[in-house]
Amino acid sequence: MHNAKGAITPDWKDSNMEATEVKHHEVDEDRPLEELVYTFGGAEPIASLKPGTLLSTSTLDAFAGRLTSVDQRPSQVCDPRFLNPQTGPFFIEGAQPGDTVAVHFVSIEPRNDWGVSTTVPFFGALTGSRETALLNAALPELTWIYEIDREERLVHYQALDSKLHLPLPMAPMHGTVGVAPPLQEVRSSLTPGSWGGNMDTPEMKVGTTCYLGVNVEGAMLSFGDGHARQGEGETCGVAVECAMDSTVLVDLVKRTMTPWPRLETDEHIMTVGSAKPLEDAFRIAHTEMVHWIAQLLSLSVMDSYQLVSQAALSPIANVCDTVYSVVCKVPKRLLGWVTPFQGKHAELRAQAG
Amino acid sequence: MHNAKGAITPDWKDSNMEATEVKHHEVDEDRPLEELVYTFGGAEPIASLKPGTLLSTSTLDAFAGRLTSVDQRPSQVCDPRFLNPQTGPFFIEGAQPGDTVAVHFVSIEPRNDWGVSTTVPFFGALTGSRETALLNAALPELTWIYEIDREERLVHYQALDSKLHLPLPMAPMHGTVGVAPPLQEVRSSLTPGSWGGNMDTPEMKVGTTCYLGVNVEGAMLSFGDGHARQGEGETCGVAVECAMDSTVLVDLVKRTMTPWPRLETDEHIMTVGSAKPLEDAFRIAHTEMVHWIAQLLSLSVMDSYQLVSQAALSPIANVCDTVYSVVCKVPKRLLGWVTPFQGKHAELRAQAG
Amino acid sequence: MHNAKGAITPDWKDSNMEATEVKHHEVDEDRPLEELVYTFGGAEPIASLKPGTLLSTSTLDAFAGRLTSVDQRPSQVCDPRFLNPQTGPFFIEGAQPGDTVAVHFVSIEPRNDWGVSTTVPFFGALTGSRETALLNAALPELTWIYEIDREERLVHYQALDSKLHLPLPMAPMHGTVGVAPPLQEVRSSLTPGSWGGNMDTPEMKVGTTCYLGVNVEGAMLSFGDGHARQGEGETCGVAVECAMDSTVLVDLVKRTMTPWPRLETDEHIMTVGSAKPLEDAFRIAHTEMVHWIAQLLSLSVMDSYQLVSQAALSPIANVCDTVYSVVCKVPKRLLGWVTPFQGKHAELRAQAG
Amino acid sequence: MHNAKGAITPDWKDSNMEATEVKHHEVDEDRPLEELVYTFGGAEPIASLKPGTLLSTSTLDAFAGRLTSVDQRPSQVCDPRFLNPQTGPFFIEGAQPGDTVAVHFVSIEPRNDWGVSTTVPFFGALTGSRETALLNAALPELTWIYEIDREERLVHYQALDSKLHLPLPMAPMHGTVGVAPPLQEVRSSLTPGSWGGNMDTPEMKVGTTCYLGVNVEGAMLSFGDGHARQGEGETCGVAVECAMDSTVLVDLVKRTMTPWPRLETDEHIMTVGSAKPLEDAFRIAHTEMVHWIAQLLSLSVMDSYQLVSQAALSPIANVCDTVYSVVCKVPKRLLGWVTPFQGKHAELRAQAG
Repeated sequence: MHNAKGAITPDWKDSNMEATEVKHHEVDEDRPLEELVYTFGGAEPIASLKPGTLLSTSTLDAFAGRLTSVDQRPSQVCDPRFLNPQTGPFFIEGAQPGDTVAVHFVSIEPRNDWGVSTTVPFFGALTGSRETALLNAALPELTWIYEIDREERLVHYQALDSKLHLPLPMAPMHGTVGVAPPLQEVRSSLTPGSWGGNMDTPEMKVGTTCYLGVNVEGAMLSFGDGHARQGEGETCGVAVECAMDSTVLVDLVKRTMTPWPRLETDEHIMTVGSAKPLEDAFRIAHTEMVHWIAQLLSLSVMDSYQLVSQAALSPIANVCDTVYSVVCKVPKRLLGWVTPFQGKHAELRAQAG
Repeated sequence: MHNAKGAITPDWKDSNMEATEVKHHEVDEDRPLEELVYTFGGAEPIASLKPGTLLSTSTLDAFAGRLTSVDQRPSQVCDPRFLNPQTGPFFIEGAQPGDTVAVHFVSIEPRNDWGVSTTVPFFGALTGSRETALLNAALPELTWIYEIDREERLVHYQALDSKLHLPLPMAPMHGTVGVAPPLQEVRSSLTPGSWGGNMDTPEMKVGTTCYLGVNVEGAMLSFGDGHARQGEGETCGVAVECAMDSTVLVDLVKRTMTPWPRLETDEHIMTVGSAKPLEDAFRIAHTEMVHWIAQLLSLSVMDSYQLVSQAALSPIANVCDTVYSVVCKVPKRLLGWVTPFQGKHAELRAQAG
Repeated sequence: MHNAKGAITPDWKDSNMEATEVKHHEVDEDRPLEELVYTFGGAEPIASLKPGTLLSTSTLDAFAGRLTSVDQRPSQVCDPRFLNPQTGPFFIEGAQPGDTVAVHFVSIEPRNDWGVSTTVPFFGALTGSRETALLNAALPELTWIYEIDREERLVHYQALDSKLHLPLPMAPMHGTVGVAPPLQEVRSSLTPGSWGGNMDTPEMKVGTTCYLGVNVEGAMLSFGDGHARQGEGETCGVAVECAMDSTVLVDLVKRTMTPWPRLETDEHIMTVGSAKPLEDAFRIAHTEMVHWIAQLLSLSVMDSYQLVSQAALSPIANVCDTVYSVVCKVPKRLLGWVTPFQGKHAELRAQAG
Repeated sequence: MHNAKGAITPDWKDSNMEATEVKHHEVDEDRPLEELVYTFGGAEPIASLKPGTLLSTSTLDAFAGRLTSVDQRPSQVCDPRFLNPQTGPFFIEGAQPGDTVAVHFVSIEPRNDWGVSTTVPFFGALTGSRETALLNAALPELTWIYEIDREERLVHYQALDSKLHLPLPMAPMHGTVGVAPPLQEVRSSLTPGSWGGNMDTPEMKVGTTCYLGVNVEGAMLSFGDGHARQGEGETCGVAVECAMDSTVLVDLVKRTMTPWPRLETDEHIMTVGSAKPLEDAFRIAHTEMVHWIAQLLSLSVMDSYQLVSQAALSPIANVCDTVYSVVCKVPKRLLGWVTPFQGKHAELRAQAG
């Protein structure tokens, strides 16, 4: 077990005071890597937050800022023990097992004018990997740097082996958001699961509320792994990784269990399943949605199953992490509009302004 | 091997004449089920088409029109040997192994003012099945009838166990389109694969061009399995099934191999992979896209891998059939616009009017 | 559709006569490849057999005898359309859907004093493949020749890159045995399924009775793909392939359905499941065994589930073919001895002498 | 994080003394469940052992002894947070990351004259589960008690729904043996992985040496989950569970990495892979074996791949846990006899007497 206290040097306001806004100083990118937090569960909280807090903070990129040039390789500049550092964990006051934490993303902005992507040996959907263990050699380990134009909201793809340049829309998101897992487990920030974690879905963007079931007192919320942009599936295993300045509203829904992560936007409700094989991730997301809609619309399970079968979108989140993630996404409009979690999303949306 | 000649009683124009339009009479729904075609490969062609033909035809629904009431069960009115009848096969003149057939969907209109969905014992994503063989009993076998309002473009969901009614947008598509498989195989119309078949993707709609690699002389094109609407994944295994009146432009791209099905619309290029586990369907679709974009943009494979990782959408098509299907979908706009297959889609689009 | 009549030039005795022994001349290895049979289903029968027939025949190796030297590569000397030729199909007189064919292996002897194994690009358990589609290059394509010492019952492994030589016990078996599939399908001899086919289990050896459910009139039995020896899983995708002289007793169990292949020896009963992912092959084999033992011992399904959980062996058959195969194997002794299929195995065993 | 010190009340000899034997008092089955250890990693060591120690200890059964009658249900008498308690962890003196711990099983004897098996809702290979999430109801939750006759070496199966009784050979083993995982993770004792854990292979029996790579200082070895007998695959998810009196020799191989667990007996070398889907567990085990044999016999990787393909057995270990386990097993005899890990197994075997 590691003690991650001080992983970020915050100038926290007293978290016991009445104020509902919390800010902290800049992330210190020169901090020793071993002092950062790379797990969900297992680390001491860096601060305590009241439900309803507007938290402004920063996150390091998945390489902790060490990978900055196309001439560098992850295997040269990164320690495999120290990947994907998280900001947190935050102790949510009053959070108990059986409750649900709600995290509404108010703002996610790249800190810098560049992002980075790579191929990592034996990692990614289209190569043999640690678990899909093959005898093939690794694919080449390469690094791409993306210029990020925050004014124009573009990230600039530049091919390595040709002059091709393509501007792609900036679409900032967090790859990871999660709480401490159940069963006393401590899980690497590289893995997703029922506690959230490394789901790597582009749906985790501004305007989204993420609901996570609480497994331990205080929930122990963390997030990180900012992406300026990501394709669905995160095929090569690495998005356009960048440090983020992010503001989130953190709230609590008491006495409501959330077995797997749920998302809500103004337009959609979503469930996220994480498992292998990929069809099990699909099954988790879609059974969760069937049961959720049955509850929201007072439908029988079979009627809800039928409705989901005709109404759901099923975008893939990641096919590269230790387990894979699939989203089930249903337009609220098709359901005659619904207000789950006692209208928490609308409330946070209003509060976000 | 079965002889399917006369599976549809066409009043075909002479397919050797110059005309490029072919029409036929109505589908005869009282025809004996054993005379219809339920396979890709293995059946005699019902007509020969010149490349460039505008074909107006009809397709039966997946239950061959036998399931018409919520009081019926598929297991009572359907013979498991006679599910998902196809219209075709059509012999495409000049098609040889190594060529690609292009099918552009000009019009797909429900023939009737109703569609049907069901749950089928041991079939669907959220139940044990023939291959995911478990000891659980089957889920209830139920039938839902959807009213289809072709004026308003709506299909009406009506719950069985409550009074809930929800109008859903009509979004007509064909679940199956395919050619004869390679290796002398004959495959059930219930299965998808490299030859197309039962891919069950909502992307197979008006405005889409579907490219299929030719495995045998004449290609032997068939299609069917109309859906007035379908959720991604086709979770319960059955969409809003209905007979269709469809018009397609059938064309040929000579000397171009297409290992797995590819789709094109004005806005997107797409690849479709079909396999189990679901991650293999993803891998097929995404490797195909990597190689396709590498070719279209003269990129190295690694540069294309990187680009696909940030640019692709990955909607799931089906997680219920004998193998599962995943689509990889890239906006042409992000690629600086591309014109694959020598501009065939644009050509057919123009021709469709 | 192909016509495979005359695939083997037999000097068949009249199959309508009373005699219960059928022999034929040597396999003609110079026969044109396109005249051989590479499918289950889809080919005309080469002979008709009465139930109870003792059939002495031969099978070509999976490369049809074309690969004979370490200096050859499969991709140079083989046509991918013409792999794994089968001996058959045999029309079993009186066989109807709903019956079961029983094939007892009396003798399986390598025809020659050598066998061959290879690595085939994008084929095998430890490489990317057509369906586990990756961006890695293929593994090297290599050929190993094994000397087969039929006197000493040894096959001699000789390393290519060193002088290491290891004698391994000869353990002859047939990789494929099957009947025509259901649903009018024609399946490549490279794939296994409910009809048997390319199961590639070392259990298919002398002394084993294989039970296969009949899907079409006459069953259309074929077999081939002789292996002088094979590891479980057939990891690289290719065993010690060799032509075989084999004698089998072919019989019929009327009015008995066999949904998936079952095997019996003096000591064990076995079920075989073929599917992807591999756990589905396991699930098929083990649910089949649960239901079989429930029937044999008049147990409830749950009691049988418990018994199988403590009594079964689960050797893997293949993890390389288009779908994978797992065997569930239970010692009859642990069940207090059982005599399934009305004692057919004991009967054939006695008849074999 | 939990403190598990005192999980077992040992009367340990001073572990710093010269003696190489360590014993402790009986397991106290009335101890509060929350004081036991249910994880690999995350718990304080209960004792420190010198390499070469002969450790005599006891393990509780997976239900911590709470399930003792066919009238009880696991869901009634067990807390899901407190399943599968482990004996340990033991701090192995001198063990550092990069070393390998060797555990040789000298004796594994059921403590009591009974064992217990059950079906657990949504757990097991032949039912929907938490990850293979389906809409089906759970299978019945049932409990079977086995009489264990230690004299006759039999466990007695008694059907619940009939009078059938079957004696099965006793074959004691440990389902779990493992060390602390890498990446600061803490993993439930219900899951297997590269650190060992809940592999549930019948190969973990008397006479076997288990090699585990060390991830943290002291390795933190634990084991438990005794089975009086288990079928391969542990199909229903529960073996014949029983408390054990076990004696193990614990030793250390310095400066030798072991990425995934390896086993050795007098006759075989084995590798164990744990992952989902099941083919990935197979791939891990078999690539590990290919690389191991390449090293032991100075073969090229491709020559070793070929040899493993013809020589390996592939028994399945479990298809019920959070990830599945497959064993690759090669007779040493076929390899001309090999002595891996510098002959550590032979040394421990001799020491065991």
